[in-house]
Amino acid sequence: MSIPLVLGYLGPPGTFSEQAAREFQSSYAIDALKALPSIPHVLLEVDKQEIGLGLVPVENSIEGTVNVTLDMLANEVNLFIQGELVLDIRHCLLTLEGDKKKIRFIYSHPQALAQCRRFLLDNFPNASCIPTESTAQAALLVKQSAGGLAALGSLVAAQEYGLAVRNSDASDFPGNKTRFLIVGKKSFSYKKPEKSSLCLAVNENIPGVLHQILGEFAKEQIDLTKIESRPTKKELGNYLFFLDCRADLLGEDKNVLERLKKICRFVKVLGCYGTGLLKEEAELGYREK
Amino acid sequence: MSIPLVLGYLGPPGTFSEQAAREFQSSYAIDALKALPSIPHVLLEVDKQEIGLGLVPVENSIEGTVNVTLDMLANEVNLFIQGELVLDIRHCLLTLEGDKKKIRFIYSHPQALAQCRRFLLDNFPNASCIPTESTAQAALLVKQSAGGLAALGSLVAAQEYGLAVRNSDASDFPGNKTRFLIVGKKSFSYKKPEKSSLCLAVNENIPGVLHQILGEFAKEQIDLTKIESRPTKKELGNYLFFLDCRADLLGEDKNVLERLKKICRFVKVLGCYGTGLLKEEAELGYREK
Repeated sequence: MSIPLVLGYLGPPGTFSEQAAREFQSSYAIDALKALPSIPHVLLEVDKQEIGLGLVPVENSIEGTVNVTLDMLANEVNLFIQGELVLDIRHCLLTLEGDKKKIRFIYSHPQALAQCRRFLLDNFPNASCIPTESTAQAALLVKQSAGGLAALGSLVAAQEYGLAVRNSDASDFPGNKTRFLIVGKKSFSYKKPEKSSLCLAVNENIPGVLHQILGEFAKEQIDLTKIESRPTKKELGNYLFFLDCRADLLGEDKNVLERLKKICRFVKVLGCYGTGLLKEEAELGYREK
Repeated sequence: MSIPLVLGYLGPPGTFSEQAAREFQSSYAIDALKALPSIPHVLLEVDKQEIGLGLVPVENSIEGTVNVTLDMLANEVNLFIQGELVLDIRHCLLTLEGDKKKIRFIYSHPQALAQCRRFLLDNFPNASCIPTESTAQAALLVKQSAGGLAALGSLVAAQEYGLAVRNSDASDFPGNKTRFLIVGKKSFSYKKPEKSSLCLAVNENIPGVLHQILGEFAKEQIDLTKIESRPTKKELGNYLFFLDCRADLLGEDKNVLERLKKICRFVKVLGCYGTGLLKEEAELGYREK
């Protein structure tokens, strides 16, 4: 008897998260996708083991980090990153078919509005931008309206909700991509994880301690692919650091992790994972913590 | 003949930005405040010298960096930070006076919604959160409604729009503070600037280069108060770094700046400034670049 493996994502259908979830599903033994209303919902359902896996956006090439994802992985759930997936993002400007009214309101997810900020300012200087929970929800609002509205969303959302594509590439910068993480309760067993993600906190106000931390990576010639700071939420000027590196901190590079634990007051490994899809590794199962 | 000195801020009246602007005005020779509809409007008007100074939020103790502020200072305007100001933030839940309807929608700026996320989830699990351009705009929407709505906003906004304070402290974490920057076209002449802010970019994929950069600060015992990465918007995994440090990089610590210029492909000093109000320094005027 096996329990069906369900992957939760930020819905409703038509979001970029759904596109990423479908790409991931086709290369892995996912039985069903479940649309959830927000990123916290996805992470909390996986944490409570109501669903087996969750897919959440973590970073966009234009707008940067998705703060709520990092904050929850650090503080509110105990999950492991099991893989990552990078999706090309193309924001389209969607309206009702044949809508001749002046566009007064433009709906979308705050990240999408930010990624098309200049396009909107140049083309619709007098329209108000209204943030929504997702790009697909924005498309749905346009669908339910009497016109005079537009949404920034995917081509898939245009099809899903039967909207006209007024502009098929509204991003301010070419090469717009979003990186998604696949998370579960356990650490997936890769033959050779290519990347590790961790978050750490240092004792306050020790000058040079971040330099010392980075030195531990430099010493072993480990490439850092990302460093990001987020507030600890306790005091202004007090940060958690999130690092991604090309190493296996729970495997062959665990000596680096040990040394970091001596320097930092808090270290949490968020996952050691491969950067491709899981197809070839899917039979390996999970590794012991 | 002197031109009146106008300070622009994120309006409408009743925002936390307005509170910060009033604190700053009272200690400096500002002739008038001007409410503007967004952070980009504030920075662009100062850049085009339509107003003399601008005040913009840059960082909150719970929700972290205000991305649009950093991105615009790095890429879209040429301004100098002339000072900073930290304001205590207390979000109140505001409704119409005597409103007995069930609250179905809660309006506020995305940062405020994020700072009160748990409060809202615990107390209004079925209400939808609708982001607005500012906390004061959210209060205005409640004022214009027929009830059943709430806004997260300041006590000043409650007074400004005649709303009832349903809860006087809805933040998820105590000690909520926002740091604001005061920016102008020129570098203000402090007797002794306490802080410098700069942004820099490194040649791609050089392992250890960030360690080398931090080493230049460590060598001189200069305390870094903040490090933040933002995407260059050109490619995923390609970042600009924003550093705040306790030094005067255009004055007595300019040797550090010279060495950074040799390591980095792009260095921009965003300002060297004091951390208090400008009262005592106001007569010093501007320094040569």
